Amino acid sequence: MSETKKSEPLLIVGSVAFDSVETPQGRADMALGGSASYAAIAASYFARPQVVGIVGEDFQSHHMDRFRDHGVDVRGIEAVAGKTFHWKGRYHENFKDRDTLETALNVFQHFDPSIPEAYRNTRYVLLGNIDPRLQLSVLDQTRAARLVAMDTMNFWIDTAREPLREVLKRVDLLFINDEEAMQLAEDWTVLGAAEKILRLGPKYVVIKRGEHGAVLFGPDLTLYVPAVLLSNVVDPTGAGDTFAGGFMGHLSRTGALDRENLARALTWGTVLASFSVEAFSVDGICGLAHESIEARRQRLLDMIRY
Amino acid sequence: MSETKKSEPLLIVGSVAFDSVETPQGRADMALGGSASYAAIAASYFARPQVVGIVGEDFQSHHMDRFRDHGVDVRGIEAVAGKTFHWKGRYHENFKDRDTLETALNVFQHFDPSIPEAYRNTRYVLLGNIDPRLQLSVLDQTRAARLVAMDTMNFWIDTAREPLREVLKRVDLLFINDEEAMQLAEDWTVLGAAEKILRLGPKYVVIKRGEHGAVLFGPDLTLYVPAVLLSNVVDPTGAGDTFAGGFMGHLSRTGALDRENLARALTWGTVLASFSVEAFSVDGICGLAHESIEARRQRLLDMIRY
Repeated sequence: MSETKKSEPLLIVGSVAFDSVETPQGRADMALGGSASYAAIAASYFARPQVVGIVGEDFQSHHMDRFRDHGVDVRGIEAVAGKTFHWKGRYHENFKDRDTLETALNVFQHFDPSIPEAYRNTRYVLLGNIDPRLQLSVLDQTRAARLVAMDTMNFWIDTAREPLREVLKRVDLLFINDEEAMQLAEDWTVLGAAEKILRLGPKYVVIKRGEHGAVLFGPDLTLYVPAVLLSNVVDPTGAGDTFAGGFMGHLSRTGALDRENLARALTWGTVLASFSVEAFSVDGICGLAHESIEARRQRLLDMIRY
Repeated sequence: MSETKKSEPLLIVGSVAFDSVETPQGRADMALGGSASYAAIAASYFARPQVVGIVGEDFQSHHMDRFRDHGVDVRGIEAVAGKTFHWKGRYHENFKDRDTLETALNVFQHFDPSIPEAYRNTRYVLLGNIDPRLQLSVLDQTRAARLVAMDTMNFWIDTAREPLREVLKRVDLLFINDEEAMQLAEDWTVLGAAEKILRLGPKYVVIKRGEHGAVLFGPDLTLYVPAVLLSNVVDPTGAGDTFAGGFMGHLSRTGALDRENLARALTWGTVLASFSVEAFSVDGICGLAHESIEARRQRLLDMIRY
């Protein structure tokens, strides 16, 4: 990674939150979370992330420092009166399922992303998993974008299907997990769901399968990447956002959308996600040495070298 | 595959059965099934399978012809008074789970595999998912074996753990699905389970993950193969046995146990399994053209070419 300058910015719009999480491996209280936080720190290893989000008065300077320490541009994080978005959840044994114990949107319920003038010409954009109507508003404010990726979830498929379809028509790439892809496409195979989603607009779809990896589908293109095998998982929260941040960070830095470069993006996203789940909050992806990221990517590639 | 003669036999010991299966895609009644049936037909594309099993009077010559049509040596299939093993099951929507509606062991409950003289020097052996005590008996009768692989399941882990541990000490390779691997190893990660299983005896373990593929672990070796992505699945029954048959068939034909050849075995097993689930019973793997098998393997390799 060291051979290229981290010159190109990547605009990330999403949640910045506090998470209280309990897993079979322990617990964390009011720790930094949110889709934009994970994605920005992951992307920082490749590109210059710009975050647009909203926080409350309880979001302290030491929280902001975690972004700054990674070269994340935080001018787009608006601090307003009130409390920061707080999510509380508990993972079941084996991490297969989780229960949401509390969702306090707080200041996030009034989030209406206004893209700072300085970010309006950013060519790479990642729309985190937020209301599709807000995603549309961001699209209207980022007309210079060359590559726009988005994430979404079952909640928006259930409650905002029409605006979601509008966003899908206007983005280049969709990140979505397998169950949600099947729900969106009304097709119970990954392949069938991917083909239907591509007809809704995006040129590429990356279907995330958790511990089983991810599959990218595009024009005449299918690329599979397994997850890194780990002997210890602490907290899966944010793995998907980390994956998206690493993936888009690599593309922002390199630009090319050919098969080889998309494959590289998949592996970087996968490697960052594997670090993410080894600790609570963003701890697993903070302050990583380039050597350890590269070593883990080599381990991943060795596993699928045929 | 055509460049090599199918000279080397592979001994397969397991069940030959009739299955009655209902899936979201339809149903089959009293169709040919059983671990040895799937494994033998899959292996027949690479090697010369020899089957040791037991059937009843209701097992007709047209059933036997399905084996003979694939060059399977059926001299070891004993026909006795009574009925053939019958399993009846129903898959849930999305094929995630299945219910066993009926298990009539019939003649299979008296199965006590006697290896015909003609098979006693066979160098490649696949012990299907049967009572570990019977697997031990087969091991005693196949002293010339160069490579012995076995399959097992939760039932034996629960009810015959000690004999199972004895078998594990004496085999070279274990095929096992992920949940059962975790149960056997008492470790909830695939990596941790694999490491513990390797300490129980086998040099290699292949952890099957269904639609997510399989992972082979061995000395300084981890190889991941995704499943072929399919837009239509009809019946998953026998996919694991088909995988094992294709894998072991390739190894019997080629002999080498280096990384490259093990990787090839994984891909052939995966490709055969993908054909298997596209139809009921063994229909998906009968009479395949070598060209279509090879084309599908190429599609699989393209998906993981980095």
